[in-house]
Amino acid sequence: MKDFNEYPTIALDDDASCVVMIDQTLLPGRLELLRLSELSDIWEAIKLLRVRGAPAIGVTAGFAAYLAAKSQTTEDIFAFEKQFDADIDFLASSRPTAVNLFWALGRMKAAERDASKAGKNVAEIKQILLAEANAICSEDIRICKSIGEHALSLLRPGQGLLTHCNAGRLATVEYGTATAAMYLGHERGYDFDVYCDETRPLLQGARLTAFELAAAGMHPTVLCDNMSASLMKTGRIHAVFTGCDRVAANGDSANKIGTSLLALAAKRYGVPFYICAPSSTLDMQTPNGEGIVIEQRAPEEVTEMWYSERMAPEGIGVYNPAFDVTDADLITAIITEDGAIAPGDLKARYPVNVL
Amino acid sequence: MKDFNEYPTIALDDDASCVVMIDQTLLPGRLELLRLSELSDIWEAIKLLRVRGAPAIGVTAGFAAYLAAKSQTTEDIFAFEKQFDADIDFLASSRPTAVNLFWALGRMKAAERDASKAGKNVAEIKQILLAEANAICSEDIRICKSIGEHALSLLRPGQGLLTHCNAGRLATVEYGTATAAMYLGHERGYDFDVYCDETRPLLQGARLTAFELAAAGMHPTVLCDNMSASLMKTGRIHAVFTGCDRVAANGDSANKIGTSLLALAAKRYGVPFYICAPSSTLDMQTPNGEGIVIEQRAPEEVTEMWYSERMAPEGIGVYNPAFDVTDADLITAIITEDGAIAPGDLKARYPVNVL
Repeated sequence: MKDFNEYPTIALDDDASCVVMIDQTLLPGRLELLRLSELSDIWEAIKLLRVRGAPAIGVTAGFAAYLAAKSQTTEDIFAFEKQFDADIDFLASSRPTAVNLFWALGRMKAAERDASKAGKNVAEIKQILLAEANAICSEDIRICKSIGEHALSLLRPGQGLLTHCNAGRLATVEYGTATAAMYLGHERGYDFDVYCDETRPLLQGARLTAFELAAAGMHPTVLCDNMSASLMKTGRIHAVFTGCDRVAANGDSANKIGTSLLALAAKRYGVPFYICAPSSTLDMQTPNGEGIVIEQRAPEEVTEMWYSERMAPEGIGVYNPAFDVTDADLITAIITEDGAIAPGDLKARYPVNVL
Repeated sequence: MKDFNEYPTIALDDDASCVVMIDQTLLPGRLELLRLSELSDIWEAIKLLRVRGAPAIGVTAGFAAYLAAKSQTTEDIFAFEKQFDADIDFLASSRPTAVNLFWALGRMKAAERDASKAGKNVAEIKQILLAEANAICSEDIRICKSIGEHALSLLRPGQGLLTHCNAGRLATVEYGTATAAMYLGHERGYDFDVYCDETRPLLQGARLTAFELAAAGMHPTVLCDNMSASLMKTGRIHAVFTGCDRVAANGDSANKIGTSLLALAAKRYGVPFYICAPSSTLDMQTPNGEGIVIEQRAPEEVTEMWYSERMAPEGIGVYNPAFDVTDADLITAIITEDGAIAPGDLKARYPVNVL
């Protein structure tokens, strides 16, 4: 457990020669660090979910774009730019649905273009790209911490907090989004009682969130996803925090499958339900949740994955959406780095996309 | 699959020498029949969930009590009765919370006492016990079928039906309770679209319900428990049916963990939510759900069972209640063998316990 806390989810090595990441596919059983410098290896790590979580993928993509640029030997700006664009496109193909991936790659590309237009040479551009990748990384930490401060201001010591899936430090660089208040509260002696939905089918809650909170010295309790109503009825939960993949302009929020059911239980039992997300997650161009397309994933995730033998009969159908949309009326507030914002106030606060 | 349909969940062998049961712990991977005549073997089969589901356990206990009586060699009524009572007590210790177990054993004991008081000899009493055990079994089939007819009268062909856990034929002798309308509808060409929650932690929905419905020729679709709100939002579900372990006088109903969350989703999306149970499940002496004690089960069911490796970190807490209580206001009707009864009408319909 000790080693885990020594490493961020994703980082650039001290001499900026490779990215260092925790291989999340091996958790909680094994903690192994990957040191990757080849673009194809980083692409594969994103593809195979060795690094996952929209913010962490964005940071990884930033570092990868820099490493790709650094590896070029040409001094010719035209040749450099052509290869850089191809590398950006390659990275963008690793996970087609992760918004932060495109956002980070877009930032890197814009930084390269601006520097090129300003007459910088290839060596100078590489330094500018390094600075931009580091900025994406440090901004992620700052944004998560800010989300945590806003969330913490809504809580009192000793309260019970519940989260779903992993919007923790393993989905970001540090702190996480949904877990940021838990980490900050833990540092400040709030002694929260923290609960994690296991989050079927891929068990990110049990495998990742419970693991990282325990590693930080908290004492998380795991429950199956169907137990949240029962738990809330006992009065032990005072707030629910989840992450988010996309927030529509009216506050409808797409997040890991099960989030909307959790929000229903919270509403029933009078527990505040908070969506935690960087403002870059707000999609003010999508009016409501009906405009958000939900990915259906492979049946085997439900019927086979993680099991030593098949746990459902052959030939049956499987309903396996990766996300669901939580209606805005079930959400107490959306907590961004700018504060806790009621769904109905989003449009006034963010007239256009931050992205 | 063919063999499965040839055998009831539990039966007495043709020459009344043993019980024949499907070993449910091996499903869906293997179909094996157990033929048990020794009391200790039947006790163990109940204990280890080789046979499970409150009605099926009751029927098994009735047959077991008969087989125990039959195995006695004494002609002395006093010695016979002493051993019979001890055997009944032993069977009752197999699963301390299954109401139907005590109900069936109580019926067998009463039948023995009545015969004894009427001056019957040991051989005659054994025949009376055989008749009583068979009566418990055939009544279970009749009750389930009747529940199915009442439920089916509320449905139209082609509708989508969702159930949770296994209150199917594997929990009874035939038809099941929550699945009875599915079976009857299937026989009559209703072509229902049937969905099964997988039902963590023990996966009875994926392992048993999907299996038995598929074996009957239906085409069930399995979903993780956290996907029900998402599914109902699509409009594909027209009714939810679950079984029940105990119904309080006001209609609050204890059933497998997750049932109350499912009922919340049904309420949200305007889907009728039905509890299916024999009237013997109604406990009119318990005013409401607060009087129902909920069993907490072993953490390993959540963190280890069914997995080839541990899927949650060591040392964490686990919240693992076996049941939850669905508040009466979330229940459209409780369907017994007597009809579909609104929760508020229960007291008028059943002034005292059927049990």
